[in-house]
Amino acid sequence: MIKHLRSAADLDAGTATLILDTAAEMAALAGREVKKLPTLRGRTVVNLFYEDSTRTRISFEAAAKRLSADVINFSAKGSSVSKGESLKDTALTLQAMGADAVVIRHPASGAPHRLASWVDGSVVNAGDGTHEHPTQALLDAYTMRSRLGRIDGLNVAIVGDVLHSRVARSNVLLLTTLGAKVTLVGPPTLIPVDIAAALSPGTEPSRGGKPKENRTGVSYDLDSVLAGTDVVMMLRVQTERMQDSYFPSAREYSRRYGLDVPRMRKLPEHAIVMHPGPMNRGMEIAPEVADSSRSTIVEQVANGVSARMAVLYLLLGGKA
Amino acid sequence: MIKHLRSAADLDAGTATLILDTAAEMAALAGREVKKLPTLRGRTVVNLFYEDSTRTRISFEAAAKRLSADVINFSAKGSSVSKGESLKDTALTLQAMGADAVVIRHPASGAPHRLASWVDGSVVNAGDGTHEHPTQALLDAYTMRSRLGRIDGLNVAIVGDVLHSRVARSNVLLLTTLGAKVTLVGPPTLIPVDIAAALSPGTEPSRGGKPKENRTGVSYDLDSVLAGTDVVMMLRVQTERMQDSYFPSAREYSRRYGLDVPRMRKLPEHAIVMHPGPMNRGMEIAPEVADSSRSTIVEQVANGVSARMAVLYLLLGGKA
Amino acid sequence: MIKHLRSAADLDAGTATLILDTAAEMAALAGREVKKLPTLRGRTVVNLFYEDSTRTRISFEAAAKRLSADVINFSAKGSSVSKGESLKDTALTLQAMGADAVVIRHPASGAPHRLASWVDGSVVNAGDGTHEHPTQALLDAYTMRSRLGRIDGLNVAIVGDVLHSRVARSNVLLLTTLGAKVTLVGPPTLIPVDIAAALSPGTEPSRGGKPKENRTGVSYDLDSVLAGTDVVMMLRVQTERMQDSYFPSAREYSRRYGLDVPRMRKLPEHAIVMHPGPMNRGMEIAPEVADSSRSTIVEQVANGVSARMAVLYLLLGGKA
Repeated sequence: MIKHLRSAADLDAGTATLILDTAAEMAALAGREVKKLPTLRGRTVVNLFYEDSTRTRISFEAAAKRLSADVINFSAKGSSVSKGESLKDTALTLQAMGADAVVIRHPASGAPHRLASWVDGSVVNAGDGTHEHPTQALLDAYTMRSRLGRIDGLNVAIVGDVLHSRVARSNVLLLTTLGAKVTLVGPPTLIPVDIAAALSPGTEPSRGGKPKENRTGVSYDLDSVLAGTDVVMMLRVQTERMQDSYFPSAREYSRRYGLDVPRMRKLPEHAIVMHPGPMNRGMEIAPEVADSSRSTIVEQVANGVSARMAVLYLLLGGKA
Repeated sequence: MIKHLRSAADLDAGTATLILDTAAEMAALAGREVKKLPTLRGRTVVNLFYEDSTRTRISFEAAAKRLSADVINFSAKGSSVSKGESLKDTALTLQAMGADAVVIRHPASGAPHRLASWVDGSVVNAGDGTHEHPTQALLDAYTMRSRLGRIDGLNVAIVGDVLHSRVARSNVLLLTTLGAKVTLVGPPTLIPVDIAAALSPGTEPSRGGKPKENRTGVSYDLDSVLAGTDVVMMLRVQTERMQDSYFPSAREYSRRYGLDVPRMRKLPEHAIVMHPGPMNRGMEIAPEVADSSRSTIVEQVANGVSARMAVLYLLLGGKA
Repeated sequence: MIKHLRSAADLDAGTATLILDTAAEMAALAGREVKKLPTLRGRTVVNLFYEDSTRTRISFEAAAKRLSADVINFSAKGSSVSKGESLKDTALTLQAMGADAVVIRHPASGAPHRLASWVDGSVVNAGDGTHEHPTQALLDAYTMRSRLGRIDGLNVAIVGDVLHSRVARSNVLLLTTLGAKVTLVGPPTLIPVDIAAALSPGTEPSRGGKPKENRTGVSYDLDSVLAGTDVVMMLRVQTERMQDSYFPSAREYSRRYGLDVPRMRKLPEHAIVMHPGPMNRGMEIAPEVADSSRSTIVEQVANGVSARMAVLYLLLGGKA
C-alpha cells in the first residue's frame, strides 16, 4: 500500500480499486448501522487547514472518528503559523506530537509533497491550490461505479472552470487510470493548454471539436458533447473570479455552460449529473437539475465519508 | 417520543415531564461520579452554529460527549455556508454525512423547522433569531422544579426585553404547558403586543395592571409584581439595542426594571432569582443579587448539561 | 500532590521530580506504541484560550486525548466572554458544566490564580501574560534531563527578551528549584531589574559581569557566557515589539544576541541548544544552529505532550 495520498497520480489502477472496494465495505457497514469501528483506536489524525473548508474538514473528521481515531483540528488561521512559522516547523511540531496522519488543505500547490518529506506519518492532500484534491476524485469514482456499475469505458464530461479546478485535475488523472474517457468542456480561456497538451498528446484541440480516440479530449461546446456522455461533472463557478477579464459574464457563462433542463434531456437515459458542491444554483446548474433523480450530489457527500475512511484505514495500515 | 425539538410547543406536558425526569437521572448519575454513559456510542451529533454562542455550544458538546456520541462542531462563519451555500444544501450535506442529530443555532426564526424537513436525523433548536430556545426553557423548568418541588401553580415573572427574547418565548410556552402562571414584565415598548394577545386572549393589558386569572399576564411595574412571585427570571439586556429609540436609557432601565437588593427583599422568603446568562452585573441584576443564595444562575448552567443530555438521549431513541 | 499548576513556584523539588519521572513513563509507553491510556476516561478537560496559541492548545489536547479524557475547546474570541462576560462568570459556567480541569491561556498575569479560586477542578496555567508558563518549564527541564542526565548543577543561559518572557520566568523558578544555575542574558533594557533583584539578592548586575556564585545571574554579553554553559535557551523575539524604543534594531539584536554557528562553536562539546518555538530563523537563531544535532527543538515539542500528560494525570488524581 502507498504511504501518502498527495496526488491522484499516487494511485495505480490496483490501488485505486482497492480503495474503492474498501470504501464499499465501509458504506455497507454504515448501512447495517455499524457506525463505529475500532480500527484506528489510539491513532491521531490531524486536520491541518490553511484555508477554510468546513465541508471537507468535517468529512475527514467524521471518517476518522468512525474509525475511532483521535482527531485534532489545527486551523492555521490565527495560529503561530499565520505569524510566519514555516510549514517545515509546523510539520516538525506535528511530527513531534505523534500525528499518525496529517490531512492538509493549503493554498500552495505542492504543499502536501513538501510536508510528506518532513513527517513520519501519512500525508493526505485535502486540496492544494489549483493543483489536486485526490479524495474528491476517489469519491467521484466511487459514485460513478456505484451508480453505473463500472468506470472503465465511461465517457465523462467535466464542465466549467477547468483551469483553476483541483477537482478536475485529480479526476482526470484517476478516471483515465481507471479506463474512463474524459472530455474537458468550457470556454477556451478556462481550459488550460498544458492539461490539454499533457492529457492529449498530439491533439490540437479545435473549437467545438470532438474528443479524439485517446482517453481525454477538449470541447468548447457543451451541447455537442451531451448525447455521448455517461457522466456530466459540473464544476463550481468561483464567482470571485467573475471579475477576471478571461471569464465570461455570469449570464453568458450560464447560457453557454450551465446545465439546465433542456440540456439534461439531451443526455442518454442512464447518464448521471455530478457536482462537488457547494453549488451555485442557477449559475452552473439549474435547481431542477440539481434536485433531479439523475443528480448524485447528495450521494457524493455520503460517499466522501466512506472514501476517506478507506483512505485513512489503508494508509494507516489498517490492513494488517 | 417526539423526533425533533424545534419549539417548546413541540412538548406536551407528558413529554416535557419525561425529559425533566430523565434530566434528573442524568444529574444523579453525574453526582455519583458516573460521568460517561455508553448510550450514544457511534452516534454523531453535529453542532451547526450560524451565530457565536460558545456557552450553548459547549453545553451541548459536553452533554453529547458524556453520552459517548461523536461531536462535530460546524461553525458556519468562514465556511462555504458563509459563501452563500443555502441552508438546504448544508442540510443535505450533514444528512449525507450521517448526522444522527443536528443542534442548530441560527439568526433566522424558523430555520430549525426548515432544517427538520430536509434531514432524517433529529433537529434540536439551540436558538433561532428572536423566536425560541427550547432547551433553555427545559433547563429553567428543571431548575424551578428542583428548587421549589413543582412547576404547576408557580407564579413566574419574566422581566426585561421580552420582545427580542427567545428565552422568554420558549419559557412562556413550556411553563404554561406545565401549569405555571407567567407574568411578562418590562417597559411597554419591549412587551410584544402579539405575545400578550396570543397568551392572554381577551385581555387588554393595562399599564401596571395585575395579571388576570388565566395563565399569563403582563405588567409594566416590577415592584407591584414581586410580592406574589415564586420565580423572577431576569432577561439579559442586549446593550447593543440600547441605541434603539424604543429602549429606555441604561440608567432608566436599571432603575425601573433592574433587580437590586431592595427589590429582592420584596420577594417571598422561598422565591428564587434566575438569569439565562451571561449577566450584565449592575444593569438588569445587582451583583449582590446575582451572588445571593436565592440566585440559581450557576445551577442553571449545570442543569443545562443534564437537560441537554436528556433531550439527546430521548430524541435519539435512547429509551429502546 | 498539588491540585493546581498556576506557577512553577507551585512545584517543590519532589513534586517537580515526580512529574518528570511520570513524563518519562508516558514517553516510554508512547515509544512502545501504547498511545492511548484509559486513565482519564469520563473526565473533561477544557482548553480555555483567551489568546490564540494553536501549538500549546493542541499539545494539551493531544495529551488529554491520549489519557482518554474528553476535551472541549473554548476559544474566548467571539464568544460571550468577548462580549464582556467576566472571567468569574466564565469560571462558574465551566464549574457548573463539570470541568475536571481547566487549561487556561490568558493575556492577564495572574488570571489562573483567580480562576483557581472559583472552580473545584484543577487549573493549569498555559501562559498568563508576561508572567508564567509552567508546563513549558517542565518540558524544558525534562528535555535537559533526558539529554544531559541531570538538572542539578547545570549551567543554563536564557537569552533574549527576558523582560516579556513567561517562558524565562517559569524556567528560572523551576530550574533553580531543581539545582541548576541560570544566567539571564540580553540587552539591559530587556532584563527586568526586579527579576534580577529577586533572583540574585545582593547582586548589582554589572555590564558584562559574570554570574555570582548563587543560583542566578545576569549578563549582557552572550559571548562571555558560552564557554561555561551546558544549556543555551534562546527566547523567541516578538517582532511586534521591535517598534518599541527599548528594543535594539533587528540587525543589532541579531548581531549581539543571535546564536549563530561561530557562537555555537564556543559551547562545550556536550552543550545543547533549546528554543520554545516558534523560531525566527535568522533572527535569534541561525538556521544551521536550529537544525544541528545540538538542537533539542523538535524533542521539546514531543516532550511537551509527555510533560502535559504527566501534569494532567497527577493533578487529576491518576495516582490513585
